[in-house]
Amino acid sequence: MTEAAHGTQSHAPGPDAADTVELLGLVAHLQHVAFGRLAEDARVAPTTAQQLELSRLAAAAVTRRDRVLARVVELGGDPERGLGAYARLLEDFDSRTQPSTWWERLLRSYVADGVSDDFCRIAAAAVDPESRVLLEEVLDDAAHANLAVGELEAAGAQDEVLVSRLALWGRRLVGEALGVVQQAMSAHPGLGRLVTRRGAEAAAQAESPEPAAAAAEAEDLAAPAKLFGELTAEHTRRMSRLGLTA
Amino acid sequence: MTEAAHGTQSHAPGPDAADTVELLGLVAHLQHVAFGRLAEDARVAPTTAQQLELSRLAAAAVTRRDRVLARVVELGGDPERGLGAYARLLEDFDSRTQPSTWWERLLRSYVADGVSDDFCRIAAAAVDPESRVLLEEVLDDAAHANLAVGELEAAGAQDEVLVSRLALWGRRLVGEALGVVQQAMSAHPGLGRLVTRRGAEAAAQAESPEPAAAAAEAEDLAAPAKLFGELTAEHTRRMSRLGLTA
Repeated sequence: MTEAAHGTQSHAPGPDAADTVELLGLVAHLQHVAFGRLAEDARVAPTTAQQLELSRLAAAAVTRRDRVLARVVELGGDPERGLGAYARLLEDFDSRTQPSTWWERLLRSYVADGVSDDFCRIAAAAVDPESRVLLEEVLDDAAHANLAVGELEAAGAQDEVLVSRLALWGRRLVGEALGVVQQAMSAHPGLGRLVTRRGAEAAAQAESPEPAAAAAEAEDLAAPAKLFGELTAEHTRRMSRLGLTA
Repeated sequence: MTEAAHGTQSHAPGPDAADTVELLGLVAHLQHVAFGRLAEDARVAPTTAQQLELSRLAAAAVTRRDRVLARVVELGGDPERGLGAYARLLEDFDSRTQPSTWWERLLRSYVADGVSDDFCRIAAAAVDPESRVLLEEVLDDAAHANLAVGELEAAGAQDEVLVSRLALWGRRLVGEALGVVQQAMSAHPGLGRLVTRRGAEAAAQAESPEPAAAAAEAEDLAAPAKLFGELTAEHTRRMSRLGLTA
């Protein structure tokens, strides 16, 4: 894929489709991981009601993953390769953030899913409309976040020590999660191109006195900083929903 | 529930509904367990294609479980209690049949699901028609069995040592599985009543010279032996599908 192809074929699968397939593969992988994690959560959840709810969330993650993989096929990609490309992405994150309690476990998913969903949403702004609509739907599911918020708020209301320990845990988690975003972008350059392009399109749409090429170049440099700023701001907002300081 | 109630209200939720709810709880529990096991299988499966397929089977088990729990609610039962009643049923089986290879793991599910599905189908013959149709649909899913047969046949074709080790493993598994059936029936008498009643109804329908009461009494004694005979025969048939001696 050449740089010249950017922006010329944004409404149909074309040269850009390879970058889109790269993003779809990431989203499918994250849903696949969410399935495994929610299934394990269901196994260890303290009550039958939680076991039922978490297993339903796990099943829903499989459905979402398969919708994304179906789009990979429509764009001419290989679903197994698309998924497999990210097989080792979260290994370090997982081994470095082993939760020691049910609350740490809930918060880990809340923070990690929040950061990864935000990243995917940002990159999704630059793909073809059909893929974008699909990704927005898939990334819009807040069921687990709501469950986590409900339980963590209830637990924290009675326990100030827990609140301060979880705030600390949250800071560690977000650092690790942002590291994963960094790794994903360097291993999968298509992701970085989507993020940069989203910025360039936004700049071109704004009333900018600069020529488009210069704006795009400026965005190339500014995009990562802007990206991490956005991800951090969203994380801070999410932590404050829990009454935790980011 | 009194003995006199048997057979008088078989078409609507009534006194018999308690036994039916007991069976529905067992089937829901087995689907819930299948979900957890398939999710774990998906995690450790050697290829991405297997991971995808097994996770889809896990999600399907959640859907089936929830259909059964919906029927529990329709019959006036409590779904969480219905499911929770069996929470410890498979603990011994699981700890005594830890598989040491992928093949042993596949065969364990194939044997255990085979025996438990057969048992549930036999008991389901005695419940109200709506519950029976639902249970027959839920118990009719052969997707995992077909996957196991395909993989085990392919592996065994190249390896005679594996075949004889798996035959031995299968014999151990079926012994443990029949023990679970025995335990389930003594802990949940409604299950035993359904199995006995199925036999009594069959005997009454046959052209029997004995009065119905005598036939029912004879069935009470003969039912367990007949049940275990049927379960063993079906197990033998399933093992021979794999080219294994039961």
